[in-house]
Amino acid sequence: MSTWYLGIDLGGSNISAALMDSQGRMRHLKKIKTLAHEGRAKVLSRIIEIAKAVPQEAGIKPQSVLAIGIGAPGIIDVPNGVVLYSPNLPGWKKVPIKKTLQTALKKPVVIDNDANVAAYGEKWQGAGRKYKDIVVYTLGTGVGGGIIVDGEIFHGHSDAAGELGHMTIIPDGPRCGCGNHGCVEALVSGTAIARMAREALAKITQSMLYELCGKIPNEVTAKMVFQAARKGDQLALEIVTQTGQYLGIAIANTINLLNPELIIIGGGVSGAGELLLRPARAEVKRRALKDSLACVKIVAAQLGDQAGVIGAAGIAILAKSTRNNHPGRRRTA
Amino acid sequence: MSTWYLGIDLGGSNISAALMDSQGRMRHLKKIKTLAHEGRAKVLSRIIEIAKAVPQEAGIKPQSVLAIGIGAPGIIDVPNGVVLYSPNLPGWKKVPIKKTLQTALKKPVVIDNDANVAAYGEKWQGAGRKYKDIVVYTLGTGVGGGIIVDGEIFHGHSDAAGELGHMTIIPDGPRCGCGNHGCVEALVSGTAIARMAREALAKITQSMLYELCGKIPNEVTAKMVFQAARKGDQLALEIVTQTGQYLGIAIANTINLLNPELIIIGGGVSGAGELLLRPARAEVKRRALKDSLACVKIVAAQLGDQAGVIGAAGIAILAKSTRNNHPGRRRTA
Repeated sequence: MSTWYLGIDLGGSNISAALMDSQGRMRHLKKIKTLAHEGRAKVLSRIIEIAKAVPQEAGIKPQSVLAIGIGAPGIIDVPNGVVLYSPNLPGWKKVPIKKTLQTALKKPVVIDNDANVAAYGEKWQGAGRKYKDIVVYTLGTGVGGGIIVDGEIFHGHSDAAGELGHMTIIPDGPRCGCGNHGCVEALVSGTAIARMAREALAKITQSMLYELCGKIPNEVTAKMVFQAARKGDQLALEIVTQTGQYLGIAIANTINLLNPELIIIGGGVSGAGELLLRPARAEVKRRALKDSLACVKIVAAQLGDQAGVIGAAGIAILAKSTRNNHPGRRRTA
Repeated sequence: MSTWYLGIDLGGSNISAALMDSQGRMRHLKKIKTLAHEGRAKVLSRIIEIAKAVPQEAGIKPQSVLAIGIGAPGIIDVPNGVVLYSPNLPGWKKVPIKKTLQTALKKPVVIDNDANVAAYGEKWQGAGRKYKDIVVYTLGTGVGGGIIVDGEIFHGHSDAAGELGHMTIIPDGPRCGCGNHGCVEALVSGTAIARMAREALAKITQSMLYELCGKIPNEVTAKMVFQAARKGDQLALEIVTQTGQYLGIAIANTINLLNPELIIIGGGVSGAGELLLRPARAEVKRRALKDSLACVKIVAAQLGDQAGVIGAAGIAILAKSTRNNHPGRRRTA
């Protein structure tokens, strides 16, 4: 009998679930709306529903699903499987998601932070397959991070490690959503890129961007910036280059601190590709110590928005194979 | 028969060696000049000499010394025990120190980077005794760093991790010895503090500092700055406060990335005590994420300049007890 693992990616907008085998082959993928505003009980029901529906739709017996892994946004108590709180899921405070789902689904459930899980997905089946010491930047509306050490998720002391988006690189820089100033997230996220474009268009309208946003600077998006940059628009190119330089400072810092062998850049913003990565690499070269620089590569992510759901199946496999509640670094505490 | 471990701290100026038991009790300590300019063969002889002299002076039989640990400056190939190169030891390139000493002394020898070893010393017998996830900043002429994860030295992929002094926090800041601009080391080291004082005294002479340096701004030292600050001198206080703020940015970044339970601040600059730590803590509070901040303490180191020699004995014990060439994180590669 084939055996399967279910990965679930719980997001503020969508819940995705994938059925995978231990070799990383995906059998079935399903996506539904989270409808987070309806409250946590409804969202939990919806997770249970999708966890039952996916094997059924794939024609797989429920008992051949061995374990379930979940990536969830926010602060997670990993060993106990509790969402402590989540800015993206209104009303979620101390939600014992692991216990609830184990009771409902009669299977081992393991949960981790969504950025960690996506990083693990890239390590298991994406750009990091052949590597063990990896740092993953996920550049989207915000900036997520995941640190993989010796092939496992690095959690830190209270499961809060890997917040690469909240490293300060310009102490008096723009205010970040976290309250601090000059965080990577306030400089390199899609939101930050749109802000830079908006501010630039308030002064300069001689740009393709001005047309793209319908001459309303407040409507400009990061996507429009990349679009204009690809067509050679000077202003857009300057914004993307500046963003790449900020990203490069952040990457150099993680290289000097963690000495990884691979840096993976994913998320929507990374769609800018070499336009972003070229200035980032140049900045890294200027700032990283040469011994650490010599052994590290900087590459694009490979799994796109499936990194989370794939990584979630991956941590389920880990949890099952090590009989360990705590995916990633084994803790003796 | 009691058994002993020998810790050796190889520095650019001095070689220290201490005989310790497995409980961390020190039996004998000896210090000699490195005389690095005489070349590596002479320095290696001097290490062998002190390694033989210490048990002898303590009245300990050579065979009751079970293993030797060494902290050395520079880039170390830890598993093979080779000093790849060392800016502080002229002529040291690919020196197989472990093999040389094992042959001469007929004992297991283990070697690691001096900042890592000092960090491990504080973990084993200093301020970090009761903790497992620790970041250590050593603020001296330069800024050294050590990361302890789950009680062991974190090495990274090629033994180059933990370079906290080369994190960029002011991208267009002063040039660092490493070639980069705005590194922690270029802002928080004793050298950086002296530079700030020198620059300030070029403009303002209304300060106790101006008298302390004999009215020659080029002669001002970090020590004079702390001395004047403790006496309430305005200019000196501003410099120390600014330095503390820079240190706080660096600490906040390591908290957000690594989520440790303890930050230890050591080295000569940390002698400024609360004058430095108070502004650092305030900056950390502004910049660290609240979940990581809630579980971390920032404290002063306890072992002073003995952290290295104690930590060196500590890694010898680890190596002996785990029969592992690689102190710290066990690697499967």
